[in-house]
Amino acid sequence: MSTNGNAAPTDTYDVVVIGGGPPGENAAQYAIQGTDRTAVIVEKELVGGECSYWACMPSKALLRPWEVLDNARHLPGVQSLVGDKPLDVRAVLARRDSITSVDSGKPFGHDDGSQVRWANGAHIDVVRGTGRLAGERTVTVTAADGTERTLHARHAVVLATGTTAAVPPVPGLREALPWTSRDVTNLHQVPGRIAVIGGGVVACEAATWLRALGAEVTIIGSAPRLLARNEPFAGDLVAQRFSELGIDVRLGASVDAVERPAPEDTGVGHLHGGPVTVRFGGDSVEVDEVLIAAGRIPASSDIGLDTVGLADATADSKGYLPVDDQLAVVGATGQWLYAIGDLNGRALLTHMGKYQARIAGTVIAARAEGRPSTGPWCTDRADHGIVPQVTFTDPQVGSVGHTEKEARDAGLDVETVEYDMASLSGTYLQRDDYRGRAQIVIDTQRDVLVGATFVGPEIADLVHAATVAIVGEVPLPTLWHAVPSYPTPSEIWLRLLETRYNPS
Amino acid sequence: MSTNGNAAPTDTYDVVVIGGGPPGENAAQYAIQGTDRTAVIVEKELVGGECSYWACMPSKALLRPWEVLDNARHLPGVQSLVGDKPLDVRAVLARRDSITSVDSGKPFGHDDGSQVRWANGAHIDVVRGTGRLAGERTVTVTAADGTERTLHARHAVVLATGTTAAVPPVPGLREALPWTSRDVTNLHQVPGRIAVIGGGVVACEAATWLRALGAEVTIIGSAPRLLARNEPFAGDLVAQRFSELGIDVRLGASVDAVERPAPEDTGVGHLHGGPVTVRFGGDSVEVDEVLIAAGRIPASSDIGLDTVGLADATADSKGYLPVDDQLAVVGATGQWLYAIGDLNGRALLTHMGKYQARIAGTVIAARAEGRPSTGPWCTDRADHGIVPQVTFTDPQVGSVGHTEKEARDAGLDVETVEYDMASLSGTYLQRDDYRGRAQIVIDTQRDVLVGATFVGPEIADLVHAATVAIVGEVPLPTLWHAVPSYPTPSEIWLRLLETRYNPS
Repeated sequence: MSTNGNAAPTDTYDVVVIGGGPPGENAAQYAIQGTDRTAVIVEKELVGGECSYWACMPSKALLRPWEVLDNARHLPGVQSLVGDKPLDVRAVLARRDSITSVDSGKPFGHDDGSQVRWANGAHIDVVRGTGRLAGERTVTVTAADGTERTLHARHAVVLATGTTAAVPPVPGLREALPWTSRDVTNLHQVPGRIAVIGGGVVACEAATWLRALGAEVTIIGSAPRLLARNEPFAGDLVAQRFSELGIDVRLGASVDAVERPAPEDTGVGHLHGGPVTVRFGGDSVEVDEVLIAAGRIPASSDIGLDTVGLADATADSKGYLPVDDQLAVVGATGQWLYAIGDLNGRALLTHMGKYQARIAGTVIAARAEGRPSTGPWCTDRADHGIVPQVTFTDPQVGSVGHTEKEARDAGLDVETVEYDMASLSGTYLQRDDYRGRAQIVIDTQRDVLVGATFVGPEIADLVHAATVAIVGEVPLPTLWHAVPSYPTPSEIWLRLLETRYNPS
Repeated sequence: MSTNGNAAPTDTYDVVVIGGGPPGENAAQYAIQGTDRTAVIVEKELVGGECSYWACMPSKALLRPWEVLDNARHLPGVQSLVGDKPLDVRAVLARRDSITSVDSGKPFGHDDGSQVRWANGAHIDVVRGTGRLAGERTVTVTAADGTERTLHARHAVVLATGTTAAVPPVPGLREALPWTSRDVTNLHQVPGRIAVIGGGVVACEAATWLRALGAEVTIIGSAPRLLARNEPFAGDLVAQRFSELGIDVRLGASVDAVERPAPEDTGVGHLHGGPVTVRFGGDSVEVDEVLIAAGRIPASSDIGLDTVGLADATADSKGYLPVDDQLAVVGATGQWLYAIGDLNGRALLTHMGKYQARIAGTVIAARAEGRPSTGPWCTDRADHGIVPQVTFTDPQVGSVGHTEKEARDAGLDVETVEYDMASLSGTYLQRDDYRGRAQIVIDTQRDVLVGATFVGPEIADLVHAATVAIVGEVPLPTLWHAVPSYPTPSEIWLRLLETRYNPS
């Protein structure tokens, strides 16, 4: 077993995983835990993946201080202590650096030592380099120095290569060296003025912390609403708050051109040159940096799919690699190839990738031991309409399951109930000027919940009760007996059900 | 219909409710809503009850600013803004006054006008005075000026008279004019030094805000642990934090005597005279005020139970009035008498009283309309092992269902799983120095959850997912597919289930 994160002494493993993000780590763990099977993770950047260094962790580290400060500003008793003082930017960035193990002396600027130690502690080897399929149960690894090595898998190869930021073909955009999600989560300077291209989760979260850290922000979304995959009221409430915070929100606007006379490759999170002009829909804005947050591209084009007869596997799925509910790659034969996390396109969320990894790892373990690989522990159920997501904007948006439109499009007989989150004792106590809204989507045929959305400050932990209700198919008359504690924001559940059964 | 909160023009109603707290309000509402039935609430103090003016609302208004300040103190980026500045006590008390509608010109020091308007808007009359049963379906009301009036109920009388603070027979205690919950929630002066007698919810919440507001606090509990009705680790974590906050925690100590040379009746929330000495277990402490928070006494002794043949109804239940699962008083004949809220002793919690009110109101409506009064809408299910509670101490304690001991005592085959709340990305991001713990109790025969406890900062909204899982009897292998969003504290669910299925 390797303890230094370098090449391991063996070339044959029971399980070979390409990609050491949280899904890859979990798949390896679940495939071998409690046995003497062996597993190796091949990672070309950092063990811990996008999430740990360039996505979830730094973004939430940047967002939480604003949440706490904003609460303080809206609560008499604490209000006068903070006044209108801005965040201590240096301290916020330092905490972000600590949480993401920033180490400028290490490759990719972060120290993944603790993640490697975790893997080794779980009896998982780590091999550094770019992994590619090279035939059935075979993976070649090309190290940074160009040396190659071949790994064989007795039971399974798991693909977990994730996605990278898309840079659409807007004239001048690529040449402008725009920030992507990696720069904005790892920002070392706060731009005086920044244009955020995109209106989805990454764009809206980044706009929130950029503004909180003092930047003048223009957000340019092509859709008519922010967070367009959520219920319409969610994007509306976020846009309203953004405007109050001084963020210039431009919607339904496509970017025509980007001009940066003096671009400069200064490294991740530093300003990439001089001023930039962004032209969109007849208007334009001059800024000091531009962030492109307009979708992701699956890392499927250079992983050797052609060597196992899957050259065309992603042709009809925008590069995502289709899988079945055991997370096995569709079209692969012999039950040895799996794809989990962003790469399969089911749900581009860390927690869903980890969930898929638990399922896939359990399937691999079962097949390795000659046990049945079906049944609840071996079947991806949540990706079918039970996906939760929290967007840590101001206000937060949390949801699970179907939106009203998705439920109707799926042919369900649907009823929705909405309620003002501000009309609860629990939120009234939380802070002054609370605003928010909640909605549940009911399948009237089965009388169960199929979707829920919560918008407001600190609503993140309201979502899981809805997830349990949906996955458990708990009938609404039974939910009536799930009493929320007074006075907590969870009383939204009582009000939603009261509104359903006793509409005024 | 009365619009001024005074006597109503009619003396016969379909439903007469004695006690205008949240349970009384809700029972009246549910018994008549959507119909032309009539209801009246008899209230001797304030419509809105203990909860609105003297319990839940002021206590949480006093606790929330500390929560926000403590978060700020533990989060780099905001930390330096607040330093070690104390809460702005004047602003905290002013917000508490606003939330509890303080009005020194009104009876009992608060304005219940908005609650009366709500009742009237729901077509419920309000009669001021002390209500007592005076025979079947009959209630007499004695107004403050001594005038009497008789109300007749066509369908139902609902008793919702609640509880009052108990003052145990400790020598000198009553003579010392100790603060009770009403004083400490409505404090107008922060005592320099205060002794809190009791170790339960009221005592621990009050100790938290008293300390947060600057008082030197000694808490003297007779049980060996704080919050003794919760899992032992809950009280231990609260006691540990209390000690760090400088609260002097004395456990297993019974108070022998209280001495106050110069007691003075100065009104609610003012110091009731000069210094007090509290003697307990061979030790003593001198303080400026003493709070007695050692239980409640049901208001059942002067409500005319003897006039309906129920003189002995509370003899075996410490004064609480036993009810069946329709909330009908046990021993009353003719299906007309109900008792809800604290008075029946099922669960002394506002949300449970309101829940019982919804059930009782629905039962009354069904019986009034000749419909069956059984089935899920008409049966109190939650009081049987699905009672949630959040204690807003620092740290918060949230629980639902059985503790491990309760489950074993109930004869269940039980397995427990514990997990360190601090070992989650979601809590690590929330603030530095996070501490907490969670535990689930599993009925291994049915493989379902029967209890859960969460301890930590801001855990209040984690409880409801457990409540849904318990009430829905969702099998644990199904809960495996309820994926919590990363990185939220709700990931505690994943870790608890992982620990159960893959113990390391």
